[in-house]
Amino acid sequence: MDIGLIGLGRMGTGIARTLLRAGHRLTVYNRSREKAEALQGAGATVAGNVGEACRGEVVVTMLADDPALEAVTFGRAGIVSSLSKGSVHVSMSTIGVALAERLADEHAGAGQGFVSAPVFGRPQAAEAGKLAVVAAGPEEFVRKCKPLFEAMGPKLMVAGTHAALANAVKLAGNFLIGSVLESLAEAMALARKSGVDAQALLDFFTSTLFDAPIYKTYGGLIVSGEHEQVGFTAPLGLKDVRLVLEAAGAKSVPMPIASVVRDRLVTAIARGHGDKDWSVLGRIAAEDAGLTAGKK
Amino acid sequence: MDIGLIGLGRMGTGIARTLLRAGHRLTVYNRSREKAEALQGAGATVAGNVGEACRGEVVVTMLADDPALEAVTFGRAGIVSSLSKGSVHVSMSTIGVALAERLADEHAGAGQGFVSAPVFGRPQAAEAGKLAVVAAGPEEFVRKCKPLFEAMGPKLMVAGTHAALANAVKLAGNFLIGSVLESLAEAMALARKSGVDAQALLDFFTSTLFDAPIYKTYGGLIVSGEHEQVGFTAPLGLKDVRLVLEAAGAKSVPMPIASVVRDRLVTAIARGHGDKDWSVLGRIAAEDAGLTAGKK
Amino acid sequence: MDIGLIGLGRMGTGIARTLLRAGHRLTVYNRSREKAEALQGAGATVAGNVGEACRGEVVVTMLADDPALEAVTFGRAGIVSSLSKGSVHVSMSTIGVALAERLADEHAGAGQGFVSAPVFGRPQAAEAGKLAVVAAGPEEFVRKCKPLFEAMGPKLMVAGTHAALANAVKLAGNFLIGSVLESLAEAMALARKSGVDAQALLDFFTSTLFDAPIYKTYGGLIVSGEHEQVGFTAPLGLKDVRLVLEAAGAKSVPMPIASVVRDRLVTAIARGHGDKDWSVLGRIAAEDAGLTAGKK
Amino acid sequence: MDIGLIGLGRMGTGIARTLLRAGHRLTVYNRSREKAEALQGAGATVAGNVGEACRGEVVVTMLADDPALEAVTFGRAGIVSSLSKGSVHVSMSTIGVALAERLADEHAGAGQGFVSAPVFGRPQAAEAGKLAVVAAGPEEFVRKCKPLFEAMGPKLMVAGTHAALANAVKLAGNFLIGSVLESLAEAMALARKSGVDAQALLDFFTSTLFDAPIYKTYGGLIVSGEHEQVGFTAPLGLKDVRLVLEAAGAKSVPMPIASVVRDRLVTAIARGHGDKDWSVLGRIAAEDAGLTAGKK
Repeated sequence: MDIGLIGLGRMGTGIARTLLRAGHRLTVYNRSREKAEALQGAGATVAGNVGEACRGEVVVTMLADDPALEAVTFGRAGIVSSLSKGSVHVSMSTIGVALAERLADEHAGAGQGFVSAPVFGRPQAAEAGKLAVVAAGPEEFVRKCKPLFEAMGPKLMVAGTHAALANAVKLAGNFLIGSVLESLAEAMALARKSGVDAQALLDFFTSTLFDAPIYKTYGGLIVSGEHEQVGFTAPLGLKDVRLVLEAAGAKSVPMPIASVVRDRLVTAIARGHGDKDWSVLGRIAAEDAGLTAGKK
Repeated sequence: MDIGLIGLGRMGTGIARTLLRAGHRLTVYNRSREKAEALQGAGATVAGNVGEACRGEVVVTMLADDPALEAVTFGRAGIVSSLSKGSVHVSMSTIGVALAERLADEHAGAGQGFVSAPVFGRPQAAEAGKLAVVAAGPEEFVRKCKPLFEAMGPKLMVAGTHAALANAVKLAGNFLIGSVLESLAEAMALARKSGVDAQALLDFFTSTLFDAPIYKTYGGLIVSGEHEQVGFTAPLGLKDVRLVLEAAGAKSVPMPIASVVRDRLVTAIARGHGDKDWSVLGRIAAEDAGLTAGKK
Repeated sequence: MDIGLIGLGRMGTGIARTLLRAGHRLTVYNRSREKAEALQGAGATVAGNVGEACRGEVVVTMLADDPALEAVTFGRAGIVSSLSKGSVHVSMSTIGVALAERLADEHAGAGQGFVSAPVFGRPQAAEAGKLAVVAAGPEEFVRKCKPLFEAMGPKLMVAGTHAALANAVKLAGNFLIGSVLESLAEAMALARKSGVDAQALLDFFTSTLFDAPIYKTYGGLIVSGEHEQVGFTAPLGLKDVRLVLEAAGAKSVPMPIASVVRDRLVTAIARGHGDKDWSVLGRIAAEDAGLTAGKK
Repeated sequence: MDIGLIGLGRMGTGIARTLLRAGHRLTVYNRSREKAEALQGAGATVAGNVGEACRGEVVVTMLADDPALEAVTFGRAGIVSSLSKGSVHVSMSTIGVALAERLADEHAGAGQGFVSAPVFGRPQAAEAGKLAVVAAGPEEFVRKCKPLFEAMGPKLMVAGTHAALANAVKLAGNFLIGSVLESLAEAMALARKSGVDAQALLDFFTSTLFDAPIYKTYGGLIVSGEHEQVGFTAPLGLKDVRLVLEAAGAKSVPMPIASVVRDRLVTAIARGHGDKDWSVLGRIAAEDAGLTAGKK
């Protein structure tokens, strides 16, 4: 398929390589051109502007936040103005439910398709084609994009025909991850102050009731106290929890645990950990229990 | 081995059957005698009082809460008075850290052994020998009891030589389970009010990031809205969260998520769900979001 | 002084009457004209559009929320386009800190003055000239408006030369009021379930440590359980708590109590109390304690 | 009246002086005798043990916590064994509801009277006879003690004939004070990071909506950041919030704000402020917002 891809951060770059490997013709655009050029060797064509990335049947966006996506989509010479009728915009970023609804409306108004398809997985998973994709949008457009999603990873959930449904699922998922982080952080602080070996505790839990990838990955980071190697920064985590609370507020759903996670991430940033992985919640819980960071 | 077992609730009965199956000689005691007699067919001897259950090398207790265990242990003609020197009391209930410390002291003072060995798993797992056991206590006594623990399930964590360590691990684990319950409850309320199919969401999450037994079991109960079939009641859950907060308070560990779970369980009980499974937190979150219970 | 006033809700109408009584020449504008005409008898001139209300030295706005104020200010033929150089826009609504900053910038860019002057007090206080006013903005403009503020009430705090400071003070104040509501709600639920006479308790507290207007007013509403006569609706309260959390988030200030108040207001609205006074938090706390609403 | 007084901390000593000034014959007992002897000059008789302080019509206790009161009351040669029939034990400490109920039962069983009469006010108020007293117990005994209460301060609330009611009122009051502390702490952190002058803000609020002693006293401590001069330590505050949550739990009343205050006090102690006034919550909120303590 002829595909455009806008946004070459670590996730976008990983997805680009996966699509190229799967045999698609890919035109990539990024604000700072060198990231686009880095993909030329793998077979990508470099676009000079947003419009040039919108000439195929599908244009994928993977951008940092709502404002970045709005700028690229609605701006003068943005996606809505550039895409031909019948072509599809696939938004893979974690964005707010309200923006997803607006995107669906505006693209529909312009005779274009819009599919929300946020993903679960870190950059390595993007590059390895091991993402979990949640897609939603009008059936014909989701069907058209299915080969792309299947290239990206083995797990696909189609959440419905209303695009924003996929974003609600993604936000619910990120909320659950944030809850795991904070609850592990508290449990480990309790364990350490009680004299329990934190690593042994984690090994036991993750081989019994909590035998899930998320507990292993984040539990390991919290036990080691190493949050410098960043998969997902605290401010990005906070951005997502805010989108969760915004979506929940719009539907009148109280979420006390989301509020706790939000408060703790704000604290982490205020205390100077804005450049660390969001697993730094482990350090906040440790410090608040009078412990210093890390293992013992 | 010659073993006594005191407390034949659903967990205790399951453990009794497992120990008998493993070939141990078992003397059982329960306040209401019929539960003890029900095990005679399987080979158990019925004790008429606590003392008669304390004649072997090991006496196991599996009782409802701290006061029940205190009554049986310290009471006139209780375990401390009855057990011979060198024999071991193995406490498998979820009890407070402070009580565990007192038990260790008093048994040591009487020349007896004390091992804390709380378990993870529901009654079916107890009966099937599929529990996860966390044991702690003086090395020689833990070693002596190892065959018992191995009969009870494939997973054993030895948390240290200080008995209360096992209880800290158990409380940390139950806290994590309670956090999963409440966070799933909130996530499902958000999903339902956003129009997402809750069952499909659960299937997706539990086949990707949250592929762990605890998410499957409790997620299913929350999605179905069926909390009448009780594995573990809301008041028992609340009792455990209180023990968590008590242990955390004693060590000066703030646990905001534990506080949220506590508040929600209190709410569930105040609103009349004291006889339901503690997964009823799903109903509380649904009602607070203006939803009626259950699937749709 | 020649003054325009835009926004004739209950607060705006009260302020209009007060300004007329103080001898100012007032031109009033409201989207639904009848509210403007109702003030003609008191001496006000009715404006047919925003521009006509901007012909004096000062234009005061008192609107429902950020979007309403943005529409009137930045819209085509809005205040920025209409006001003459050197004239002042005084915004008295409770708005977000970010919007206040934008207003200050845009008016300054247009050679106009901007003063933020939110108020504390209910509609009766507005009409009686008994509001407490918090003003901030460039010194010369605040000085110019001082006679207006003095007409509105006996208490004036000048928070600084940066307009948004006044909004930060207003939000901090509304947060404290919301905290009083929720904490009184919880205290009264505890008192009632403990068998204490709630009215006697309130009388005692408000004649000793909590001898402040806010405890008397809201305590009375919570004890009586009457939230139908609305001074300030639950959704307006929620709007303000959101602005608090937004301002706090922008400055990285964790506010766990603000989060609790937010969750409870969301709950109140989800449970169908969106048309009630925000003191309905008293009913939520009562219901969550298994009590029915009201006195006993 | 012939009165005994047990417990001569700062509150007890203040009350002793007030009772002596009012012309009562007072026998005082304290574990460390020198505090008792310090009152001889003012006319008090020093008791050598608890029994000697129980020879009058009334014995007042003012002790640190539940265990201290239990030791003095139920111990061998304690108050229950020493007091003559018809005499009254007046407990003025802040104790748990459950202990108050037990005291009422045991004294009644011994033919003695029991009145709970906790007080609001700092040591200076105790000495100056300016406490607010909440009394509850059988009518005849409360009536008998009325002259004492009236000597102690101008405000008396009789909460009912069931002694524990007074303790419920006291706990509700201390909860409200704790809520004021934490909400002021959060509001001041927001104000300071927004560039608002915290002292000016406090002056404005305490001369308008929050014109109550509690806001002035604690607001001043939080703004100045001086928590070294201790009126009431953080651990004592935590003890009281725990009693609140315990009483609330026993009646199934969820109190999310009490949980927040509890978590923050635990944090304060874990971070090394266990020797400071409980207004140190202001410092915790400031630090969590990335501010250093104190004014600017």
